[in-house]
Amino acid sequence: MIEIESKYRSPGNDKIEKALARMGAKKIAEETIEDVYLAHPGRDFGKTDEALRLRKKSEGAELSYKGPRMKVERAKAREEINLRIDNALTAQRIVERLGFKEICVVRKNRKSYALDRLRIDVDDVEGLGEFIELEILTESPERSEELLELAGKELALVNLEPRTYLELILDKKT
Amino acid sequence: MIEIESKYRSPGNDKIEKALARMGAKKIAEETIEDVYLAHPGRDFGKTDEALRLRKKSEGAELSYKGPRMKVERAKAREEINLRIDNALTAQRIVERLGFKEICVVRKNRKSYALDRLRIDVDDVEGLGEFIELEILTESPERSEELLELAGKELALVNLEPRTYLELILDKKT
Repeated sequence: MIEIESKYRSPGNDKIEKALARMGAKKIAEETIEDVYLAHPGRDFGKTDEALRLRKKSEGAELSYKGPRMKVERAKAREEINLRIDNALTAQRIVERLGFKEICVVRKNRKSYALDRLRIDVDDVEGLGEFIELEILTESPERSEELLELAGKELALVNLEPRTYLELILDKKT
Repeated sequence: MIEIESKYRSPGNDKIEKALARMGAKKIAEETIEDVYLAHPGRDFGKTDEALRLRKKSEGAELSYKGPRMKVERAKAREEINLRIDNALTAQRIVERLGFKEICVVRKNRKSYALDRLRIDVDDVEGLGEFIELEILTESPERSEELLELAGKELALVNLEPRTYLELILDKKT
């Protein structure tokens, strides 16, 4: 699957959630998410623009690979492979035995909405603040970007944030 | 968990299964197993004596890390970390993106029996023939080896095979 995504600094999550309700968006999930990002033993993911992420949610866990970002105008697209797993701790033990090292943990509260082909995540990220992510997961990216732009305008989102949460946290540390 | 294991060339799987029935062993599974072994992008598993294995069974899939073998007299012991996963193909795509490469596939029919703390696998391995594996998965390895030896004697197993199936197949190829 290709993930096409725009992230904005939120003008206020309450305000956005009200707007989403007015637009007829459907709340599909509300959860606390802990993402462990891992460094590759022989490759600098910062340079190759890849990521290996272990996600722990109240409802299960997953291991995800994210490929390099391809810039498409204002949105970003990247390959994303998600594997549902039985146990996040066991997965972490395996990847650590293989030489992967934990570099950063990102914790957030996420409320997710569905609107047509769009998924809207209303995020409150520990140490970073509030963000809105607009996302389309698709095999055929045509017109996805226009759809994202349109939704961004409807929600009056203006403050585009091109960096990932991982980059924002690492930037903050240095 | 530590896996303590002895593998023998089988004097005939039918014969062993009859003996197991006489001894009161309980059949716990019968399945076709496909094991994909993967090479690490920056470490020679042949030298470090580790393994990363993707197992596909009729009933689900798992990703396993096996640590270096510690020799304990005639049996072998090694750390084994098993992660149940949702989809073997998705897992293979992720590890391949991370630079792991498929080196070998081992296919076998396995009938598994339980007898006290022991697990006995009656294997018919594609291209290699029939084998019997005696195994204890434990946190406390004390006396496990004696138990394995005893069971081996009771089943009249004499032809110990210290190599893994992966090694046997790779040895055959060269």
